[in-house]
Amino acid sequence: MTLRLARRGSFFAGGRRVTVAGEPTREIRFSAQAAIEHDPNGTFHVEQAYVQSFVPEDAGTRPPLVLVHGGCLTGAMWETTPDGRAGWLEHFLRAGYPVHVVDGVERGRAGWCALPGIWPDSPVARSAEEIWSLYRIGPAGSADPFPGQRFPLAGLGTLLMQHVPRWFSTIPAASDTLAAVLERTGPAVVVSHSNGGLISLEATWRRPDLVAGLVCIEPSGFPERPPPPLPGLPVLTVLGDFLDATPLWRGLSAAADQADRRLRDAGAAAELWRLPEQGVRGNTHMPMMDDNAAEIADRIVAWIGARVPASRPSREPA
Amino acid sequence: MTLRLARRGSFFAGGRRVTVAGEPTREIRFSAQAAIEHDPNGTFHVEQAYVQSFVPEDAGTRPPLVLVHGGCLTGAMWETTPDGRAGWLEHFLRAGYPVHVVDGVERGRAGWCALPGIWPDSPVARSAEEIWSLYRIGPAGSADPFPGQRFPLAGLGTLLMQHVPRWFSTIPAASDTLAAVLERTGPAVVVSHSNGGLISLEATWRRPDLVAGLVCIEPSGFPERPPPPLPGLPVLTVLGDFLDATPLWRGLSAAADQADRRLRDAGAAAELWRLPEQGVRGNTHMPMMDDNAAEIADRIVAWIGARVPASRPSREPA
Repeated sequence: MTLRLARRGSFFAGGRRVTVAGEPTREIRFSAQAAIEHDPNGTFHVEQAYVQSFVPEDAGTRPPLVLVHGGCLTGAMWETTPDGRAGWLEHFLRAGYPVHVVDGVERGRAGWCALPGIWPDSPVARSAEEIWSLYRIGPAGSADPFPGQRFPLAGLGTLLMQHVPRWFSTIPAASDTLAAVLERTGPAVVVSHSNGGLISLEATWRRPDLVAGLVCIEPSGFPERPPPPLPGLPVLTVLGDFLDATPLWRGLSAAADQADRRLRDAGAAAELWRLPEQGVRGNTHMPMMDDNAAEIADRIVAWIGARVPASRPSREPA
Repeated sequence: MTLRLARRGSFFAGGRRVTVAGEPTREIRFSAQAAIEHDPNGTFHVEQAYVQSFVPEDAGTRPPLVLVHGGCLTGAMWETTPDGRAGWLEHFLRAGYPVHVVDGVERGRAGWCALPGIWPDSPVARSAEEIWSLYRIGPAGSADPFPGQRFPLAGLGTLLMQHVPRWFSTIPAASDTLAAVLERTGPAVVVSHSNGGLISLEATWRRPDLVAGLVCIEPSGFPERPPPPLPGLPVLTVLGDFLDATPLWRGLSAAADQADRRLRDAGAAAELWRLPEQGVRGNTHMPMMDDNAAEIADRIVAWIGARVPASRPSREPA
């Protein structure tokens, strides 16, 4: 079915300029025919976000959605699923929402900082084995998935290819930069995954005026400091199945309850879905890729439609 | 004006599996609430490409275009120009071509390899100052641009934000991986920029059966070994203005003439445009961003339409 877009495009937002000085020049060779004396000193931009925007023709006054990927991932996670189905990006567009897909700080098309001395830590890569256990596809060290788990196993190789290195020191910068993204999009519903949940909540603490709603899919952490007043802010947290499988997820499940209470104490209209309690079993850490991804997208679209008031049209892109 | 897409999506292609063993585990902390004992050993995928695909409703039998970015850049370079105009991606879609935008090996959403011992060299970042001189916006060390240059100076800050680190050792892998992308798209017109020109030509040497045409924008290098037989292959090389400004570009301009002759000797229907010889003055190394980007896109679309025969519809994406 044809997708009709009124606008599409991309922009960059946030980050800061840094300068490098005192480093020696060296020859770099572009090809057999071309070399230059490369000067590693000068002016660079770090900690920006890349945002790819799609506005459907029938968006009307629906609020924009801003999609924030998880750790070791990029905006590609919202596109085609690893086994080739349409991803949540397309579901949200077909539901008539303007969608801004973020590549956050040090991820994907946002680029990362190769300059010495800017970030204190080393990047971390995620193995196929860590994906298997961390995303609750199956028990660590076992070749057998959890019975009834819904991740499409034929797509495991493609899921691995979607992974990119990440840092841990950049979470504060990523939160600042997400707030800068929201300044460009205008008030938006931020739909986040995993580590993107922490970043979205931190951005909301900074600029609650720019957040029209929050959907936190399987958040892997929550701000330590309490929220600012969030009167009436619609917040939905979604957790899948197999939360008892590891100490990590038992702890995060309990932390989600505590965070939900703190949000309600701050005035937010917060709710927490554990999908199995709604009769939806088998979801992993990646419900946007699981075999019932379309059904979960429909539930989230219905929740946004019911809870988040219409807004002015999205400001971006040109 | 509404853009009507029959399909959109993304896929990953190429690269190889590597395993890491013998490294110690260490604690990593996702958030205040969550930490794991991270095992850096296991199975990883490196040297893949990310490809984002758009198929317009009226594509008919037009051949797909595969866009290959330059060094230190990603597929974002073909989208919105740094000063906010529609980029060549949109021009090509509105001309009715299916377009596959590549993030090549170690760039953008393709990810890069943070594992020890896989790539021998260190990544290189590009400064604002190097962009200024390397892209022929102005003379090195001068604050004044070349008279009549066409890069939109209001977009220089955004151009800097588009830059990401790059390696030089990965060019052979990037060429293999581009061939793997073409296996997925089917025979395509490869539109490349700068270092992407070398990679596109290397991929063509590997799999000439998968290349329906080549458009090399400001190539920064050419294969050292001679081309295979390329009977009738349409090849267009496009060079801008100010080629006499630096030894680098004087050399590359001469190398482009030599490459053009070698392509014709191999049977290709090759031609070389120096835009000033066609009365189009002021183009920098970034004609897809210069103030006459739309005019140059129109010329390239007309060249493709006249030279490249229609094909079967693009195979990707689902």
